[in-house]
Amino acid sequence: MIKGRVIGKIWSSRRVDSVPGGALLEVETDGGGHLVAYDPLGCNTGEAVLITQGSVAAAYFTGKTAPIDALIIGSIDEETPTKSRK
Amino acid sequence: MIKGRVIGKIWSSRRVDSVPGGALLEVETDGGGHLVAYDPLGCNTGEAVLITQGSVAAAYFTGKTAPIDALIIGSIDEETPTKSRK
Amino acid sequence: MIKGRVIGKIWSSRRVDSVPGGALLEVETDGGGHLVAYDPLGCNTGEAVLITQGSVAAAYFTGKTAPIDALIIGSIDEETPTKSRK
Amino acid sequence: MIKGRVIGKIWSSRRVDSVPGGALLEVETDGGGHLVAYDPLGCNTGEAVLITQGSVAAAYFTGKTAPIDALIIGSIDEETPTKSRK
Amino acid sequence: MIKGRVIGKIWSSRRVDSVPGGALLEVETDGGGHLVAYDPLGCNTGEAVLITQGSVAAAYFTGKTAPIDALIIGSIDEETPTKSRK
Repeated sequence: MIKGRVIGKIWSSRRVDSVPGGALLEVETDGGGHLVAYDPLGCNTGEAVLITQGSVAAAYFTGKTAPIDALIIGSIDEETPTKSRK
Repeated sequence: MIKGRVIGKIWSSRRVDSVPGGALLEVETDGGGHLVAYDPLGCNTGEAVLITQGSVAAAYFTGKTAPIDALIIGSIDEETPTKSRK
Repeated sequence: MIKGRVIGKIWSSRRVDSVPGGALLEVETDGGGHLVAYDPLGCNTGEAVLITQGSVAAAYFTGKTAPIDALIIGSIDEETPTKSRK
Repeated sequence: MIKGRVIGKIWSSRRVDSVPGGALLEVETDGGGHLVAYDPLGCNTGEAVLITQGSVAAAYFTGKTAPIDALIIGSIDEETPTKSRK
Repeated sequence: MIKGRVIGKIWSSRRVDSVPGGALLEVETDGGGHLVAYDPLGCNTGEAVLITQGSVAAAYFTGKTAPIDALIIGSIDEETPTKSRK
């Protein structure tokens, strides 16, 4: 998997029928690249996420063939900056 | 998935029989690379598209084995630049 | 497979149900990139590991569909630096 | 798929039995990298080709399991430079 | 497939049970990267080899699920430098 951060949402009105309903989020990956992943978790812009890729991502959609090759599988827990010096 | 922009069409008269009929478009990806994707949507040069890759792309072709590892799954909605200051 | 070195653990409280319980480790790969791999071996930070990727990693989880595209399959034996000149 | 240009042929006398007979061509890809692809079309050095990769390439070989992850699926039509100014 | 050259052997005493017995070789690829591939041919350090990757590599192991995503499928014939001018 790779880590990434959500930077926005992709809208595609004209698309292949088998694309599942739900959010397609644009993510900036750890290495600086961009990809678009299906989000089953309702993540927000700025959120750190974990992404799985390839046929493994499509296998998440049971009972149908979804043309999805990137899937957000988790929101990464980030430490809350602690207030210091008080 | 990755974002890209259609830059042209590929013609291949001599090809493997199992390549499905339909357009093969050359796409410049977000990162600056080039790839060739099967287009079931009738996209035009200059159009922003969403591409899925790997065996997930081939699975789109039900009932046959297509040697296709990149598929356009959607045209990305782009905002119409609004006329401002008028 | 690729070689890497464990640099930490990823915590994800909010995640897809099919993510198997167990450790998700962040690994710095040979080439300098980072990825997150499922660890069935109980590796420690700093340990050199061997990682398999793609659907091959998911196939490790028999009897269920796990959205895991990177798996630690071994800890790499490293030579103990020998004390010399004594 | 990716575009490439055939730069030579690979000979491998000692190989895994399941490698299918036929040409293995070395190709320089669009991005400058090199890969080796199985060629069912009889392409020549210098020819522009279209390559599919991954399990999609292996699926071309029906009825057997071929360890082939790159396949030439077409020869790309190139425009004949037209004689101009005459 | 990609070309590479064997640079050494990987030892992993603590590993996942489904890793098949046999040599895991470290290979420097054409592009300068490193990967680790299963070697069914008994290749030596310095030998030029052909590597297949992904689920295609795992499919080589029939009758079991092997977490192997890179396989040496051939030793590349290299020309013996001919003695000249004698």
